[in-house]
Amino acid sequence: MATTREDCIELDRRDPLAPLRELFELPPQSIYLDGNSLGALPKATAGRLAQVVRQEWGRDLIGSWNSADWIGLPGRVGDKIARLVGAGASELVAADSTSVNLYKVLGAALTIARSDAPAARRILSEHSNFPTDLYIAAGAARERGFDLVLAGPGEIERSIDERLAVLLLTHVDYRSGRMHDMARLTRLAHDAGALVVWDLAHSAGAVPVDLHEANADFAVGCGYKYLNGGPGAPAFVWVHPSHADRFEQPLSGWMGHAAPFEFDAGYRPAGGIARYLCGTPPILSLAALECGVDTVLAAERFGGMQAIRRKSLALSALFAERVDAQCAGSGLARLTPLPDAERGSQISYSRADGAYAIVQALIARGVVGDFRAPDVLRFGFTPLYTRHVDVFDAVDHLAAILRSGEWQQPQFSRRAAVVT
Amino acid sequence: MATTREDCIELDRRDPLAPLRELFELPPQSIYLDGNSLGALPKATAGRLAQVVRQEWGRDLIGSWNSADWIGLPGRVGDKIARLVGAGASELVAADSTSVNLYKVLGAALTIARSDAPAARRILSEHSNFPTDLYIAAGAARERGFDLVLAGPGEIERSIDERLAVLLLTHVDYRSGRMHDMARLTRLAHDAGALVVWDLAHSAGAVPVDLHEANADFAVGCGYKYLNGGPGAPAFVWVHPSHADRFEQPLSGWMGHAAPFEFDAGYRPAGGIARYLCGTPPILSLAALECGVDTVLAAERFGGMQAIRRKSLALSALFAERVDAQCAGSGLARLTPLPDAERGSQISYSRADGAYAIVQALIARGVVGDFRAPDVLRFGFTPLYTRHVDVFDAVDHLAAILRSGEWQQPQFSRRAAVVT
Repeated sequence: MATTREDCIELDRRDPLAPLRELFELPPQSIYLDGNSLGALPKATAGRLAQVVRQEWGRDLIGSWNSADWIGLPGRVGDKIARLVGAGASELVAADSTSVNLYKVLGAALTIARSDAPAARRILSEHSNFPTDLYIAAGAARERGFDLVLAGPGEIERSIDERLAVLLLTHVDYRSGRMHDMARLTRLAHDAGALVVWDLAHSAGAVPVDLHEANADFAVGCGYKYLNGGPGAPAFVWVHPSHADRFEQPLSGWMGHAAPFEFDAGYRPAGGIARYLCGTPPILSLAALECGVDTVLAAERFGGMQAIRRKSLALSALFAERVDAQCAGSGLARLTPLPDAERGSQISYSRADGAYAIVQALIARGVVGDFRAPDVLRFGFTPLYTRHVDVFDAVDHLAAILRSGEWQQPQFSRRAAVVT
Repeated sequence: MATTREDCIELDRRDPLAPLRELFELPPQSIYLDGNSLGALPKATAGRLAQVVRQEWGRDLIGSWNSADWIGLPGRVGDKIARLVGAGASELVAADSTSVNLYKVLGAALTIARSDAPAARRILSEHSNFPTDLYIAAGAARERGFDLVLAGPGEIERSIDERLAVLLLTHVDYRSGRMHDMARLTRLAHDAGALVVWDLAHSAGAVPVDLHEANADFAVGCGYKYLNGGPGAPAFVWVHPSHADRFEQPLSGWMGHAAPFEFDAGYRPAGGIARYLCGTPPILSLAALECGVDTVLAAERFGGMQAIRRKSLALSALFAERVDAQCAGSGLARLTPLPDAERGSQISYSRADGAYAIVQALIARGVVGDFRAPDVLRFGFTPLYTRHVDVFDAVDHLAAILRSGEWQQPQFSRRAAVVT
């Protein structure tokens, strides 16, 4: 365990991923621990966007759908993301938002469930799941005559039974950072005859995921967190090849048609994952997403997702242990479990009062974490650009703010909208 | 009628909209008649995107959701588009794709129809409607126990009866350029107890639209055609205020929640049009869309949509009349009706053979129109940057290609994917 700042500097010096920090534009004098909300800007993105705008759009105009292969971009970016989550080529596309993609896969999953296990009428998820997943699931359940059942902490396994149609879980919890055992829960759900949808919003690019090894059925995920795709970047959707061709998804737009440019009046879904496309893809945002995904793929030279995971665990352990040591008795209650297999790439705390103001006081010192209602302080670690020394210094700032009562200054309590 | 090139140059000299051409980066030596597929690049876009990327994302990171009001962007851009289509402030948002937005409004419209007129079980549209509208409508109809009925040319009015739940029409036909009488058809559908959804993909920014005067119920539209928002730009959705609060739409994502940042497990829809948002908005693409919409709003100083319409009609009439004169006997059959009230901002022809190759031969000469399967040549006019002299020259090229048989050179028949 590194206990001094010098130890941390030495760890950073020996860090095999250290060169990757150079791929990012990071604000000076700032420690950014919010890449789990919005990933930092890759250096390549501005230039690539300028090229897409000035040359591909401005000069080549409509011809770029062919000449610049805009039409292939959802699949090309999808293939790159696939490498990060244990999916095969041509099994994953970048498109739409996580919410919209979740609606697509739930529509397909419920259709399959109705066909294969008509007596099973439950969608099971967690109270703590990210709200948009619950909102989309509640709507899809109601429309299709299923019940959305929400489990409390530790209740998932015992809630899996023959009534289960679809298990919908977020792999790493957005608030607590707790990580599920994807393979085990998938197997339990399959044993009960159910399908499993995984939301990888806080997993893709953050922790190793192997969708095929886990034998998952469907997955969705986010482009703007650990994939560094930019604010509101397109999301992604993956469907196990054994399901992809069986049923239509409900958002049957023209980009999912077998031959969109024949302009048939009747819908004929494309084979495979392409049928999970819907409308015309947002090329500017997709081009930026590709640059972001490339920063994660750049780690393949240095050990890939396994190396990212090793460093992530080291950073989060360092943070938690230093908080235990420096902030003891300050009212912070850690929400994130510390066993390696049970946490993602963040550490979160609840505090009975002042959580929002403490986060603001940290931001005023240049340490950017975030607040999650009602009482959570959240700190994310992105091994591509977060250093051990950043973690060390961040805890020093946190401890100083708590010790001094600095956070009680009135300006830190003024609320603004806060966004994931 | 301008019959000489000099006449056209004189018309351009006196054109009140002429200064607006300076707002665009247009490829040199090219006549771009495909703004109905992908609008040209506004000069402001590259700089604005660089600012969003380098400063708002790169430097201010997550804080820009508040400080740069990213969170307000769908509504801010929506308010600007609203001014172009006769909608009120806070009635329209920019979000998702046209296909996804159509799914939202059909979901809401069918819910309302089921409540208000339970015996009416038909969605009526046209065989000739843009395919994605038909694909989405077919899916929504099947899921919700409605029938999608498609009318042939001239059959819409006689197909409106008490069985009608929702009339779904594209205002200006993507292929023929024929424009519907929005007010009249809306009134006929309302008289039959039905709701009306208008797709404004080829209308917004191209022809005057007044959704309130027409008393329309729902509208969707496209950001990347006449709004110049860039490839795959976000689309828009409008709901009449009397409907907006009545029912949920099916894509109940967190951005449509009354208080997204309270992270409630239960969905409570926002008031008004905000509930038609779903996932996190794609900020880069929305910022580019705002620049595009601004180019159309810039016409307000010079007469606005009425001035755009006057010039559009002059350009398309000039094109059609010169084709009649220069290309007589060449096998081109005009699909676009010529009465002013019946056409949008394009002129289309069918031809028994060679339509694709003729379009390619035109592109080789720098005249960019497009081909629409199976046999259509399509030429769009964007009064913000299309000049009379461009139209004059384009017809000269077309006539020369047809006269000489130049289009029969083998390289012009090689097919690539072609995109709207």
